Amino acid sequence: MKKIKVSIIGATGYSGRELIKILLKNPQVELTNLVSASYAGKNINEIFPEFLHQLDKNLIELDIDKISADSDVVFTALPHTVSLDIVTDLSNRKELKIIDLSADFRIKDPDNYAFWYKKEHTEKSKSVLKKAVYGLPELYKDIIIKSSLVANPGCYPTSVILGIAPLLKNKLVSPKGIIVDSKSGTSGAGRKLALGLHFTECNENFKAYKCTMHNHISEIEQELFYLYGMSEDIKISFTPHLLPINRGILSTSYLEMEKNVNENDLWEIYKEFYQDAPFVRIFNPSILPEIKFVNETNYCDIGFAVDSRVNKIKIISAIDNLVKGASGQAVQNMNLMFGFPEESGLV
Amino acid sequence: MKKIKVSIIGATGYSGRELIKILLKNPQVELTNLVSASYAGKNINEIFPEFLHQLDKNLIELDIDKISADSDVVFTALPHTVSLDIVTDLSNRKELKIIDLSADFRIKDPDNYAFWYKKEHTEKSKSVLKKAVYGLPELYKDIIIKSSLVANPGCYPTSVILGIAPLLKNKLVSPKGIIVDSKSGTSGAGRKLALGLHFTECNENFKAYKCTMHNHISEIEQELFYLYGMSEDIKISFTPHLLPINRGILSTSYLEMEKNVNENDLWEIYKEFYQDAPFVRIFNPSILPEIKFVNETNYCDIGFAVDSRVNKIKIISAIDNLVKGASGQAVQNMNLMFGFPEESGLV
Amino acid sequence: MKKIKVSIIGATGYSGRELIKILLKNPQVELTNLVSASYAGKNINEIFPEFLHQLDKNLIELDIDKISADSDVVFTALPHTVSLDIVTDLSNRKELKIIDLSADFRIKDPDNYAFWYKKEHTEKSKSVLKKAVYGLPELYKDIIIKSSLVANPGCYPTSVILGIAPLLKNKLVSPKGIIVDSKSGTSGAGRKLALGLHFTECNENFKAYKCTMHNHISEIEQELFYLYGMSEDIKISFTPHLLPINRGILSTSYLEMEKNVNENDLWEIYKEFYQDAPFVRIFNPSILPEIKFVNETNYCDIGFAVDSRVNKIKIISAIDNLVKGASGQAVQNMNLMFGFPEESGLV
Amino acid sequence: MKKIKVSIIGATGYSGRELIKILLKNPQVELTNLVSASYAGKNINEIFPEFLHQLDKNLIELDIDKISADSDVVFTALPHTVSLDIVTDLSNRKELKIIDLSADFRIKDPDNYAFWYKKEHTEKSKSVLKKAVYGLPELYKDIIIKSSLVANPGCYPTSVILGIAPLLKNKLVSPKGIIVDSKSGTSGAGRKLALGLHFTECNENFKAYKCTMHNHISEIEQELFYLYGMSEDIKISFTPHLLPINRGILSTSYLEMEKNVNENDLWEIYKEFYQDAPFVRIFNPSILPEIKFVNETNYCDIGFAVDSRVNKIKIISAIDNLVKGASGQAVQNMNLMFGFPEESGLV
Repeated sequence: MKKIKVSIIGATGYSGRELIKILLKNPQVELTNLVSASYAGKNINEIFPEFLHQLDKNLIELDIDKISADSDVVFTALPHTVSLDIVTDLSNRKELKIIDLSADFRIKDPDNYAFWYKKEHTEKSKSVLKKAVYGLPELYKDIIIKSSLVANPGCYPTSVILGIAPLLKNKLVSPKGIIVDSKSGTSGAGRKLALGLHFTECNENFKAYKCTMHNHISEIEQELFYLYGMSEDIKISFTPHLLPINRGILSTSYLEMEKNVNENDLWEIYKEFYQDAPFVRIFNPSILPEIKFVNETNYCDIGFAVDSRVNKIKIISAIDNLVKGASGQAVQNMNLMFGFPEESGLV
Repeated sequence: MKKIKVSIIGATGYSGRELIKILLKNPQVELTNLVSASYAGKNINEIFPEFLHQLDKNLIELDIDKISADSDVVFTALPHTVSLDIVTDLSNRKELKIIDLSADFRIKDPDNYAFWYKKEHTEKSKSVLKKAVYGLPELYKDIIIKSSLVANPGCYPTSVILGIAPLLKNKLVSPKGIIVDSKSGTSGAGRKLALGLHFTECNENFKAYKCTMHNHISEIEQELFYLYGMSEDIKISFTPHLLPINRGILSTSYLEMEKNVNENDLWEIYKEFYQDAPFVRIFNPSILPEIKFVNETNYCDIGFAVDSRVNKIKIISAIDNLVKGASGQAVQNMNLMFGFPEESGLV
Repeated sequence: MKKIKVSIIGATGYSGRELIKILLKNPQVELTNLVSASYAGKNINEIFPEFLHQLDKNLIELDIDKISADSDVVFTALPHTVSLDIVTDLSNRKELKIIDLSADFRIKDPDNYAFWYKKEHTEKSKSVLKKAVYGLPELYKDIIIKSSLVANPGCYPTSVILGIAPLLKNKLVSPKGIIVDSKSGTSGAGRKLALGLHFTECNENFKAYKCTMHNHISEIEQELFYLYGMSEDIKISFTPHLLPINRGILSTSYLEMEKNVNENDLWEIYKEFYQDAPFVRIFNPSILPEIKFVNETNYCDIGFAVDSRVNKIKIISAIDNLVKGASGQAVQNMNLMFGFPEESGLV
Repeated sequence: MKKIKVSIIGATGYSGRELIKILLKNPQVELTNLVSASYAGKNINEIFPEFLHQLDKNLIELDIDKISADSDVVFTALPHTVSLDIVTDLSNRKELKIIDLSADFRIKDPDNYAFWYKKEHTEKSKSVLKKAVYGLPELYKDIIIKSSLVANPGCYPTSVILGIAPLLKNKLVSPKGIIVDSKSGTSGAGRKLALGLHFTECNENFKAYKCTMHNHISEIEQELFYLYGMSEDIKISFTPHLLPINRGILSTSYLEMEKNVNENDLWEIYKEFYQDAPFVRIFNPSILPEIKFVNETNYCDIGFAVDSRVNKIKIISAIDNLVKGASGQAVQNMNLMFGFPEESGLV
């Protein structure tokens, strides 16, 4: 079996580390370049001793030519707005596939992107944007397979969109007044220095943050708009919260029922909607998802409750933010792009 | 200074322990009886070594006569439905004041109580119920002062009612479609044995539970109904979640704006509403409450965000579930009932 | 490839769950029987929803005949002393291999076992004991390969014995005055109900327990005795502590230097000692093991410091108590017993 | 009652915050100056919203003249080596009492200080050093009462010295071969930015650090030397570890028995030794200290086990590192220096 050559730009963040961890389990993959601006020259084992005995490789500076030369696919795991130029540059290299874990190519409308991310697209990046596919395999598997540039979804959006897609697609709920209350572990904030991320500050604590304008709203609203048939703008009220755990997101979504359904109906509708999605698990109505069930897995677990006293449907959806919310989903996309089994290296 | 005699029935649960801890700091209080069905005969220090050097007292069996004889006030910290008969019995003793930490005397309508708690009032307990005051000092201080039976509010309800009272009282929001997403630490579940409360089951986890029918809904809806002027039934969608922390509740409430206000307006309205409430802190709009700010205190912290894109007000309210959500509030009520300074032993 | 048939007795404890999780990744294995006294009749997914989409199998009652009939190997993951008769019974079935995760066949001297575990061997179990191998592959690989009954080591002993074996084998330290201070996550206590294991009791806490007579002392002393050449009795001072984490053990061992070595000498000595041990990682002296590096892996990480001011060597060794300390090591033994690659399904 | 004026230099570290929290409960104290190099000009409530409704005061720059002018006592809560010159400067002001929470005046021998802290005393600071008292009230109450400069002990040393003082004073153990294995919560590392202190790095983790040369060794050995009668040098093997909790230290000390004692003997000896120490609690031999029992208190809890198999005594001692290990002990010293009741504001 010939292995594909894989490079990671941004190898020493939490998404980068998780990519390495997952790819080491994949026999079809050879890691060729690990790029880190902060730690170039050091061995990956000095930064992450957990890879001792598994990977012995030095981190390098960013070098687009070198990377293009010996990669079949590049994962870019960089902060939002930093990815824009680098991916644009990479995307002009023939035969190279790119999976970008930032938000920079997720938003179809450049003005919308500029509004939420305070950064303007260039002419070049706009033309690259047109080729990009929003990498949620459960919705876009057919085009991901043929794509060379995948914009890997955000962690919150993955949990929210998968959680409520069947309701909007089947118009069981009102597109108005959707409320999403999400809770994430601290690894979602990345590996940068910040007092607010210190153990003593997060531990035994819980808080809301970016209470009305978290930039993940943009991709959630974009995808809900498509799902509901593009007939009307969808605006959600979204509140992210910080959980004192390392990994995991649980989102609780509240939607107004428009068709009368009970929990068993929903169970059937969801199972049908996700019948070809190996990584979505629909819980029977007697049990609800919990973050621990998806820990270190690529699953998105979905449960529901019909609150008939107030005519609402509540959706509970859970993922591991570093796996299905980032690096696992990126590898799922890689598998699709290269014709590997979708679950390869992921179960 | 003559001390008042205080007894605690249910001294070895988490609320009981917290009552002891708080009352030990109060120079006006003498602890006379500590009742525990499970540990009668043992010294309180064998159960809670943290009280060594502070309290040296044996736990006793329940004995209504003895307790009535040498108590000015009794705290009943018992499970819901267990309190009903005991409080009824105690309430017939002359001169004895009672602060009940269970839900049994919170719900004004006996049928409503029976619906949510699956337990019927007796004729006797119904007549006692008529004397009971819902012990939220920020709303009912005047009658608590004169009362001999206080039904101490639940933990979730304290955070929710204090959080949204000014909005409903001032009719700034619609009484319809209120959504409350609450998160509580594990001590809220009490000290009984349950696999789901084990460290390995809760730690690094987060989950929703009792997703549509948590019995705290009943007292929240009752109080919101009063606040809005009893002009229409209020029904909320309430979802409790379990946080991997020992103590603390943070509730995120979503309400539809009916009058156009901004965050500074809200700040002023809230400060005025709570001007006589020493334990409610209104956060200026640049900062949001966090559970750690109220840890081991009797404060309820309240912050807000106007989500003008979707015409919603979000209220973030935080308490320590064992203090303002239970034992601290109970002592605040005791202070009012005996004419002590409201903050005595609580700051 | 023909798969081997694997049964697990005690499938719903933490070791049982971890066995399932690991074995599901092993293409050479077919799970045939999952035995659980507590949950027989239920689907494994009702107990552990994390196995949804991966395993759909009902739990059964213990039935030695049935299990023997369709198993090539049985893992017994039962409490100490419960395993004794069941393993004795199973061991009389032709061609069946057994890996016992309890302590019942670890102690070579039946009197010593009786002293520490307060249970007497029977004549039958004594004859079975003679066939049992202490399943620490790094010391006994050659005989494990040929064995049909492996007594899988305890979690603390695995971390301690691997940590100090090279020192004793090479007589670099005194066999007297060895002190071992170990710290374990709560999953080590198993999944039984106990107030002391509740989240609120363990979280934000740390304590020593069974301070002088933890029964794991017996197998540690037995193996150190063999390692030092059986020339003199070895007695250690061992203190286990409970960490507020789910998984992981870190042991800090203190030994008196008898030969003058520095940290680089130790590094070389250890690397040589463990040159054929894929799951032991020797840390270079500039870095120390941490529990997170071995999380969910089968590695034992070892680091050292020479405290020349006091003529001591300190050994820091870390494992995941559920993997290398239990189920991972059990599968490593299975791999050896069936001629599979030692690391199969474990990296 | 006239209040004393109290200033804090270094008010926005964790020790500074804890000092404020404790002093706010003390009716004999008025906080006059809160000094913070990092946050001067801001209100203390912007840094620590937990003080809302309790303290409304702006942080200021360091100004020795101003502070001397309106303070009766100054707490210096600064990093090691930073305190040296500031305290020297302050100590020349007439009538001003100083309680220094750094290590700079704990070590009696300037060369020893220079060896461990890589900083030389000046002639001036040496003369100040002569006036300084090691502020462990359980050993030095008589001279603390008369002192104007107290060097408040370190957190680890407080737990260790109190734990083993009676053994050495009574020569029940050998002064040789003492091993101390200590575990501390993360607040001990202070509030500075460091990746290693991030939630995701500490949580679900445990590690040893500064494995042979932690600078707290110097003050532990100094005090043990005095306790044993200055007849011989005492050297200990000390290993600090980092616990994934906010607060608390538990130290496990191992000593060689020289006189034959059992646990009840020890209980009596310890109770006698600490009969005048309100903040030391000696546990009866049936129970061991745990970090949660001392949480947010000024107690040092001590328990013991005689490991007669190996002729060792094990001492388990626990404190809250921010209270008895820092700010609580500092206030205990203040109480003694001003003739207040020793427990004032601390229980």
